[in-house]
Amino acid sequence: MDHTMRRWHLGQFGKQHLQLQTVAIPRPGPGQILVRVTAVALNYRDKMNIDNGTGGAQVQPPFTPASDMAGEVVAVGDGVQRFIAGQRVISTFWGGWLDGPWPQGTLALGAPGPGMLAEYVLLQEDWAVAAPLHLTDAQASTLPCAGLTAWMALVEQGHLHAGQTVVLQGTGGVALFGVQLAAAHGARTILLSGDAGKLERARALGATHGLLRSQHPEWQHEVRALTEGRGADHVLELVGGENIGRSLQALRQGGRLSVIGLLGDAQLQTSIFPLLLGRHTIQGIGVGHRRALEDLVRAVDHLRLVPVVEQEYGFAQLPEALAHLERGPFGKVVVRADR
Amino acid sequence: MDHTMRRWHLGQFGKQHLQLQTVAIPRPGPGQILVRVTAVALNYRDKMNIDNGTGGAQVQPPFTPASDMAGEVVAVGDGVQRFIAGQRVISTFWGGWLDGPWPQGTLALGAPGPGMLAEYVLLQEDWAVAAPLHLTDAQASTLPCAGLTAWMALVEQGHLHAGQTVVLQGTGGVALFGVQLAAAHGARTILLSGDAGKLERARALGATHGLLRSQHPEWQHEVRALTEGRGADHVLELVGGENIGRSLQALRQGGRLSVIGLLGDAQLQTSIFPLLLGRHTIQGIGVGHRRALEDLVRAVDHLRLVPVVEQEYGFAQLPEALAHLERGPFGKVVVRADR
Amino acid sequence: MDHTMRRWHLGQFGKQHLQLQTVAIPRPGPGQILVRVTAVALNYRDKMNIDNGTGGAQVQPPFTPASDMAGEVVAVGDGVQRFIAGQRVISTFWGGWLDGPWPQGTLALGAPGPGMLAEYVLLQEDWAVAAPLHLTDAQASTLPCAGLTAWMALVEQGHLHAGQTVVLQGTGGVALFGVQLAAAHGARTILLSGDAGKLERARALGATHGLLRSQHPEWQHEVRALTEGRGADHVLELVGGENIGRSLQALRQGGRLSVIGLLGDAQLQTSIFPLLLGRHTIQGIGVGHRRALEDLVRAVDHLRLVPVVEQEYGFAQLPEALAHLERGPFGKVVVRADR
Amino acid sequence: MDHTMRRWHLGQFGKQHLQLQTVAIPRPGPGQILVRVTAVALNYRDKMNIDNGTGGAQVQPPFTPASDMAGEVVAVGDGVQRFIAGQRVISTFWGGWLDGPWPQGTLALGAPGPGMLAEYVLLQEDWAVAAPLHLTDAQASTLPCAGLTAWMALVEQGHLHAGQTVVLQGTGGVALFGVQLAAAHGARTILLSGDAGKLERARALGATHGLLRSQHPEWQHEVRALTEGRGADHVLELVGGENIGRSLQALRQGGRLSVIGLLGDAQLQTSIFPLLLGRHTIQGIGVGHRRALEDLVRAVDHLRLVPVVEQEYGFAQLPEALAHLERGPFGKVVVRADR
Repeated sequence: MDHTMRRWHLGQFGKQHLQLQTVAIPRPGPGQILVRVTAVALNYRDKMNIDNGTGGAQVQPPFTPASDMAGEVVAVGDGVQRFIAGQRVISTFWGGWLDGPWPQGTLALGAPGPGMLAEYVLLQEDWAVAAPLHLTDAQASTLPCAGLTAWMALVEQGHLHAGQTVVLQGTGGVALFGVQLAAAHGARTILLSGDAGKLERARALGATHGLLRSQHPEWQHEVRALTEGRGADHVLELVGGENIGRSLQALRQGGRLSVIGLLGDAQLQTSIFPLLLGRHTIQGIGVGHRRALEDLVRAVDHLRLVPVVEQEYGFAQLPEALAHLERGPFGKVVVRADR
Repeated sequence: MDHTMRRWHLGQFGKQHLQLQTVAIPRPGPGQILVRVTAVALNYRDKMNIDNGTGGAQVQPPFTPASDMAGEVVAVGDGVQRFIAGQRVISTFWGGWLDGPWPQGTLALGAPGPGMLAEYVLLQEDWAVAAPLHLTDAQASTLPCAGLTAWMALVEQGHLHAGQTVVLQGTGGVALFGVQLAAAHGARTILLSGDAGKLERARALGATHGLLRSQHPEWQHEVRALTEGRGADHVLELVGGENIGRSLQALRQGGRLSVIGLLGDAQLQTSIFPLLLGRHTIQGIGVGHRRALEDLVRAVDHLRLVPVVEQEYGFAQLPEALAHLERGPFGKVVVRADR
Repeated sequence: MDHTMRRWHLGQFGKQHLQLQTVAIPRPGPGQILVRVTAVALNYRDKMNIDNGTGGAQVQPPFTPASDMAGEVVAVGDGVQRFIAGQRVISTFWGGWLDGPWPQGTLALGAPGPGMLAEYVLLQEDWAVAAPLHLTDAQASTLPCAGLTAWMALVEQGHLHAGQTVVLQGTGGVALFGVQLAAAHGARTILLSGDAGKLERARALGATHGLLRSQHPEWQHEVRALTEGRGADHVLELVGGENIGRSLQALRQGGRLSVIGLLGDAQLQTSIFPLLLGRHTIQGIGVGHRRALEDLVRAVDHLRLVPVVEQEYGFAQLPEALAHLERGPFGKVVVRADR
Repeated sequence: MDHTMRRWHLGQFGKQHLQLQTVAIPRPGPGQILVRVTAVALNYRDKMNIDNGTGGAQVQPPFTPASDMAGEVVAVGDGVQRFIAGQRVISTFWGGWLDGPWPQGTLALGAPGPGMLAEYVLLQEDWAVAAPLHLTDAQASTLPCAGLTAWMALVEQGHLHAGQTVVLQGTGGVALFGVQLAAAHGARTILLSGDAGKLERARALGATHGLLRSQHPEWQHEVRALTEGRGADHVLELVGGENIGRSLQALRQGGRLSVIGLLGDAQLQTSIFPLLLGRHTIQGIGVGHRRALEDLVRAVDHLRLVPVVEQEYGFAQLPEALAHLERGPFGKVVVRADR
């Protein structure tokens, strides 16, 4: 094992200030594990944090970005019980959220918690879980945020079941995980997108219906028509703004709207009436806890579910990967960290 | 028993068009019960329906207003199994919603379903439950809408328990039921009002804390302070508009916002961030089902809980009762129908 | 339409007293539908009722047996709103259980409620739902009891999800629906049987693992081994007696045991310790409500799930069908009623 | 602070082998807190562990018994974030169960985890919570096992609410907490006991009804009569054996039986029929998690609920305290550890 490693460092806001540094490989303290990182999946939140620190908690440079990695444990500190060297792991997005409601004091990795865009990272032993057995590291690295967000919304909180209808907006990582998880539970999906080619690809992935936004600006009516007037059971809100009003109108009585997205307008606006007359539940989804991530890993392994990675980049190609992220990938963009 | 009865009739929108008619007492058909009405509790929705039909479903005159009554079964139709003559009953707000999610085809009483402002009314046998034993008819008539709304939000859906904190807005019927139900479950209440005298009366009723809106326009900070920074477990949103943003900021991680009100702005508007970071549940509460009303009656009887009726009016005094409703009563306003 | 019909009649206990009678076709009263029956699925409960009335509530002859049918509405009574003539329907096992907890006064069809082994039956309009679109009538007739029981245990109450493990006992109707529903939700199944050939057929149907009881009398250890020591998430108890102790030992922490069966010993017996240390939930499943049956129909239609009917018999062949039932069919046995 | 402390030590099974040792006060390692113990509440499990190690997990001497203490943090190890010296705390029964389902690797205090019958104890910082503000240390020490068990059964898992009926068996610590928590949530209680004097004392504490077992050996009929035939919503099973059959017959449709007890027969035995016809839930309750204990502390503080401590003993009087425990106290027995 070398003594130094490469690490991406953001000294001040702006992607032009990202620097590839060479620093000493750290050593694990009590309760910590040292992980050799092999793949890091990027989230839109990482871009926002790099641009201006607005990807959730307000954060300030300097920091190393990114929360979602796959890698191998190479050393463990005193008292570590959950892992031994040699195990493949993925990180938890939230450091310290194990189960139940989110506890105070929990840190998001990739600022303010430690960032994963490094060849080696230190984690508290509680901040990682065993990687799925049958995925590549690039694929596995997409579970901690995008995969778990879709799982929390649909399965852990939403109790999705066969015969239900799920509406998904866009074709980013969360939406495509939503398509795959819904299909795996015997549910129908209706996918909205502004891009006919992406709709086509999503159908190949298992989406039941695709709606082109330009053809169906008031898409909620189409959802009603496709469900014999009943409405959808679940909508993942990935747009925001006034779109939420349409989402509520697309829901059945007692349906569930999971609010996730930052893509459109961060201000939600809707009339109270569809909510009162439809008795819907709206729930904010801020990723999820470790127990649910372990459930997801178990599901991914049993289902042989393969996450959609549109492109993998080398470790030095982070700028290109971020540019891809800004263009709106179909699924996920991953930075490889293996030498 | 007489052959004719009095009934309030709205021929066209506007309270000036309310007429007290004398009509024949109807006879119950198969599956119906004939109820001699003794008390009718008014809701703000009744005023909106009378003014312009906007109290929920868009309704059109002619109709008899009001949904919530207490009375006595005086005759039953063929095949009726749930009731016999002589039983004291209260109506269900929704005709036909028995349990589970709200089913299509269910009617709200008081338009489009039959209105209760009559000396005798016909109901499907499924549209009534036994009245609580220890309440006057005026008190009992407040349960079907105001009482059940608070119960659905806090107990049936909210699983309220001892040690939790509930925020209530205003001192109308739902808010005061919220105070009483929270106290009965060992929970703390924080009541917001624009009227110091009403806060005083609410404290006598069991409210733990009162906040005067003029002193605490950004009342969410006060809620945080009163809960050692943790936030409230439940907020009943009875105002709407931008207030919802404050309500979300007042909630603890994973807290529950029950959206009920029509009092302020019917347009909800909020940033997505408190929702994402707080993982709150927002749920629209459109009154509730019969099984929950039966649970509430059982609770009211065991607790000897006495609903707050600020004033009772004679049957002919409906206009005065509506004027009282418009001024914003402390609790409920009831029209007596007994001769 | 003819004026007379055939109907199976049990004048006293014992299958030798089953008589095929010719009686007048009834006419629907208010709120009723007349259904021309085309297929009736038999349950083990029907056999018990015929033998000695012990298939649930203690019942007494005379009665017409069987609860589960598919057919076509041919006439409707006054006030019927849910159906029109010409619609394909299936019965609900419980007449009047619409949603939520089971209400008092609800009748099981096939005694004490009306029996379905007739060419025409009268049902309250609330006691039927639209049949799935893509199934034969024989297949559709298996949903009201066997299909719904598995659905209630696993989906409605159990919130089954992908990656979980379900243990099923035997290869009767409920167990095979369990295999199919688990597969449809991305879950693993472990099936126990005393018959190697049936295990083979179940694997073809989607069962992940099969355990031969004679090879694994203490099968709970095998379940632990197959789940890396974790235990199963769901067990459907279809045997009873001391088997329940093994079922509890096979469950993971907080796992769920759905008690369904009458096949073995009707006396449950177990040490308290696995229950205390495993914090399991044991739930009695007595079929289910209409809303869940509608959810199941929607799932069956979307999944193109085909229930397992091992054999269909003609209407006059009821004795042969019952004999098949006693031998323990693989899946369901159906009596056809179409002329 | 002294350098030595007293500690009870069990070298081999049998209470006659309990020894009061003088040992060095330990020092907290990383992540640990050192607590000066002031009060230790005894549980029946402690007696079983002392007698023969059968109080749950099979344990072997040597060990220090007891799991439930109140005390004061006097020193903290490196990296401790949850506590500072000077804070009053109580232990969690399970070391490491924070929320959600019970995780593998979690230790019960008092064997196999560290025992609390010592003047000073070391705990992982995660194994304690802030003590309620208004209780004495003796009272506070009763919450970790007896209080939390009743809370998990009735509130966290049972969603107890006003107007419900709770059946409790005996007058030990869990049963009396059940009486107090039910009363605090507006629920009715029916208490069974073999001792008329204890029933009288329980009524003074808030129990609604008391049934003397000798007068009502088939007490389930009395429960039905007291609930107008409906049955109880919750039963806490503290007896075991064949009593479970009566408990199931006492429950309403869909009611909940929480299995807790070790007092009678550890073999549960019941017919399957009440379970199938009543669709009950039976759940094993093995104390509970830290988040629920924090909820309970908050409730106790708001309600000013005072646990029932029948007698306090000095630290050297452990044998007398155990003898009291064997006689069956009314509520809890506590050993004081303050000098």
